[in-house]
Amino acid sequence: TIVRLLEEEQNRSSLLKGKKVLITAGPTQEKIDPVRYFTNPSTGKMGFALARQASLMGAEVTLVAGPVTLDTPPRVKRIDVTTAEEMYEAVTTEFSHHDIVIKSAAVADYRPKNKYEHKMKKSTGDYAVEMERTKDILMTLGERKTKQYLIGFAAETNDVEYYGEQKLRKKNLDAIVMNNVSAEGTGFAHDTNSSIYLTKEGKRLVLPLMSKDQLAQRILTEAAETVSGEAT
Amino acid sequence: TIVRLLEEEQNRSSLLKGKKVLITAGPTQEKIDPVRYFTNPSTGKMGFALARQASLMGAEVTLVAGPVTLDTPPRVKRIDVTTAEEMYEAVTTEFSHHDIVIKSAAVADYRPKNKYEHKMKKSTGDYAVEMERTKDILMTLGERKTKQYLIGFAAETNDVEYYGEQKLRKKNLDAIVMNNVSAEGTGFAHDTNSSIYLTKEGKRLVLPLMSKDQLAQRILTEAAETVSGEAT
Repeated sequence: TIVRLLEEEQNRSSLLKGKKVLITAGPTQEKIDPVRYFTNPSTGKMGFALARQASLMGAEVTLVAGPVTLDTPPRVKRIDVTTAEEMYEAVTTEFSHHDIVIKSAAVADYRPKNKYEHKMKKSTGDYAVEMERTKDILMTLGERKTKQYLIGFAAETNDVEYYGEQKLRKKNLDAIVMNNVSAEGTGFAHDTNSSIYLTKEGKRLVLPLMSKDQLAQRILTEAAETVSGEAT
Repeated sequence: TIVRLLEEEQNRSSLLKGKKVLITAGPTQEKIDPVRYFTNPSTGKMGFALARQASLMGAEVTLVAGPVTLDTPPRVKRIDVTTAEEMYEAVTTEFSHHDIVIKSAAVADYRPKNKYEHKMKKSTGDYAVEMERTKDILMTLGERKTKQYLIGFAAETNDVEYYGEQKLRKKNLDAIVMNNVSAEGTGFAHDTNSSIYLTKEGKRLVLPLMSKDQLAQRILTEAAETVSGEAT
């Protein structure tokens, strides 16, 4: 059985050999002025785990990262961005020459309509920040995809499977990883995640609480086997 | 001269002996919903440098910190907060029994009026985030102060000295540290700062680019000498 374990390890380490994997990670920041912005609690841990594991599995990995404080995994090509617009530009430029694309970044849906060059002075009373939609990156990728195996994430606080499956269909994904970010030990900033993995063919895997690196291995193994046309 | 340097080091290390120093650091986060918030680029480095140096100079230090990823300096009592409201509560509770109070935190001036318990679903088209003012912590401290030596920070992108001196007067501070956060190597996330230190008596020190720890030493030395009634 030691031989079998070693063989499995060997097989796993070449499962993505020759494949190009594009991963997005982290939050975006949308400025109101030089010292104020909207963002979200993403730390990039899930995306960086995916990049690290994909590289260990033999893939050529491109990682488009929002502002995070994590080290780049070995042999990974990293592109740093700050805003949703920069993320859109980087990802759509890279998309066409990749085989597997996993969007784990938490990109802002909205950004302030007006961005002030100088710090706004506060005044008494309330005010309203006018917000406009950012470009929907995952929707764009779903529309443009040819050979790419496209995986999205759904971070929800309620009706997780309902919203997750809707997103899978609407954005023409191949698979989606659904997280209830209000559950214990799951989602933003944690080192662990519990999730449900759903493919467009209806394969549904319940993935209990595990490290983000273990979850990354599971997701990448599923994707690799599907892409290679192997039985799963 | 080595003896003199050692003596100076010795003197500096006891300059705040018996003094209680309260320092605030970092940003605040103001939620719209569980996965979206409004914040600023403060990393807490300046405030943590002040806490570290004050402790080295013999003070009993309380550090009220917003969400940052820095280690607590040795012998410093740390209180973690997330929102401007929590920062206000912690600081006003601690204020009365401290001798020197330095507000280096970048507290949100505004917060979303409505906070949603569940993740908002995006819809087509624009929307506006209604914002309301948070409590002005520094103004409150300026009104309440008795014996406390109160130092504020002004982070500006233009007309730095004009806005800085206005803030010093309006908030009844004893001194203010003014930074032009759009200057090279200065302000948010940098390890260095260049600033102008201005006291209510009109003493004005131009402090060129130096490490945040060096700047912290300068600020604390000025404050300590003034509080002790020594000639400066």
